[in-house]
Amino acid sequence: MFLNFFPKDFNFFDLFEQQIGHAVEAARFFKEVVSYDCVTEDTVSKMSAIEHKADDVAHTIIEQLNKTFITPIDREDIHALTMEIDNIVDMLDTIVNRMRIYNITGVDKNLQEFAVVIEESVQAVAVAVGGLRNIKNVKVVFDACVEVNRLENVGDTMRDEMLMELFATVKDPIAVIKLKDIYVYAETVLDICEDVAHIVDSIMVKQA
Amino acid sequence: MFLNFFPKDFNFFDLFEQQIGHAVEAARFFKEVVSYDCVTEDTVSKMSAIEHKADDVAHTIIEQLNKTFITPIDREDIHALTMEIDNIVDMLDTIVNRMRIYNITGVDKNLQEFAVVIEESVQAVAVAVGGLRNIKNVKVVFDACVEVNRLENVGDTMRDEMLMELFATVKDPIAVIKLKDIYVYAETVLDICEDVAHIVDSIMVKQA
Amino acid sequence: MFLNFFPKDFNFFDLFEQQIGHAVEAARFFKEVVSYDCVTEDTVSKMSAIEHKADDVAHTIIEQLNKTFITPIDREDIHALTMEIDNIVDMLDTIVNRMRIYNITGVDKNLQEFAVVIEESVQAVAVAVGGLRNIKNVKVVFDACVEVNRLENVGDTMRDEMLMELFATVKDPIAVIKLKDIYVYAETVLDICEDVAHIVDSIMVKQA
Repeated sequence: MFLNFFPKDFNFFDLFEQQIGHAVEAARFFKEVVSYDCVTEDTVSKMSAIEHKADDVAHTIIEQLNKTFITPIDREDIHALTMEIDNIVDMLDTIVNRMRIYNITGVDKNLQEFAVVIEESVQAVAVAVGGLRNIKNVKVVFDACVEVNRLENVGDTMRDEMLMELFATVKDPIAVIKLKDIYVYAETVLDICEDVAHIVDSIMVKQA
Repeated sequence: MFLNFFPKDFNFFDLFEQQIGHAVEAARFFKEVVSYDCVTEDTVSKMSAIEHKADDVAHTIIEQLNKTFITPIDREDIHALTMEIDNIVDMLDTIVNRMRIYNITGVDKNLQEFAVVIEESVQAVAVAVGGLRNIKNVKVVFDACVEVNRLENVGDTMRDEMLMELFATVKDPIAVIKLKDIYVYAETVLDICEDVAHIVDSIMVKQA
Repeated sequence: MFLNFFPKDFNFFDLFEQQIGHAVEAARFFKEVVSYDCVTEDTVSKMSAIEHKADDVAHTIIEQLNKTFITPIDREDIHALTMEIDNIVDMLDTIVNRMRIYNITGVDKNLQEFAVVIEESVQAVAVAVGGLRNIKNVKVVFDACVEVNRLENVGDTMRDEMLMELFATVKDPIAVIKLKDIYVYAETVLDICEDVAHIVDSIMVKQA
């Protein structure tokens, strides 16, 4: 296999920015979806299209990684970062898909508020990932990572309150099963964002 | 501790073939189980026996890994591959056990079809793992990995359809809880197969 | 960044003992909690305080790891060990929190017995982790790891029996949803303890 020592025509940082850009797009679309009265096939297809675009970038990164001998950051970190950003988009795609499978209708105010936090978190992740290309961005990157951690804590509390309200007010067990899943999945997006922030943080620490 | 530089009496590739052989056996038995009217203690014991055999091979691999200084493939990859093949068998064992715990009776046509896909996937994984011993098998290995990925996508769609049908037709919440678990676990087997395929694929890429 | 070659003022083994000490404290408190008639805000706060203390030690370990050039055991192992011990405390905290969210009342004899096994397992993990500082402790460490594995198997069986009894006797689907979650989470603590034991075991093997 031919290994590029000094690949000219591609740049890991550009690819990461593209990938996290698709995650931001997915989070923004998710915020829109939770304002709909129901999730249609068309909604699912749109999210799925974003997921495919993100997937393509992830594949390109892994392919380039396998072909490149000297990488700007540790190989394991490049791999872990790509996989984890991919997980953000996958989880958002899973939630929308599950909302259709469960035929969830009506606007859920709690879920709408949660989607705002998700979008904020993914955007903070995008700032962190975007800052990776220059060690001068160290403060910007660290601040963004702190924000992602903060939002994960906010989300934990929100999910707990949503679950408490769900079990206190909804008496239909099938509805409880469905919404519990959606709420737990929604919080998982913030957990994944935190994982991405940890990876970015440790890359920055190593380069500092 | 004495480290073998050139261990003569054992071979990682043989052990991997043995281990994945037990996974194929488990998948085949699972296909049989879902055609039974109910899962008995005897069924659980039979699956458990397969799981123990697979476990023993995994332990042998890890032990040999700890004793061997020069390995034919990266240590981390040997470790990851063994652990992940083990997860296939563990998950099949968990499903059968859960079917008994939930006292699920009657033949579920959807689950029967799903078990066929699982067996196909584990067999494709076996082809991929078996091909690892010779770099000449690169095409066979890559084709098998592509097939595993394809079957994971097929399984995703099938699980979604099974869940949709479940929530649309079954009105007993307890039955919904039980079958939802079984369906989700069943699809997880395909996810694990895909993880194994990724590991095999990356081992091949490194050696190419 | 300044890297310590021979850091004098801190010791990884002391920090690990502190961290696992908080896990033991959490397991002990959990055993107490399951004897209460209900979980109050105060109970949640107490467990949360233990979790914060454990978290602080984990952060210290990771910070020291990033600043230290030569570590007594592999960097990856230090990282993995800290993360996994943290997961023990996190899961215990999650369970208590979930018991409050679900407003679970009344003493559950099965859960009480399970909490005893959890405490035993975390204490065996503490022995294993504590033994890491000296290779002379190899037998004590290995015996403790075997005990953790044994308790994981015991817990598996207990959880299965708890689930079987739950589905056979409780007819309220919402109650089933709640208790199923708690039982599954409780067993997960033992899985995490087993993961810690695996890490400790492999550290010992490498040093032997």
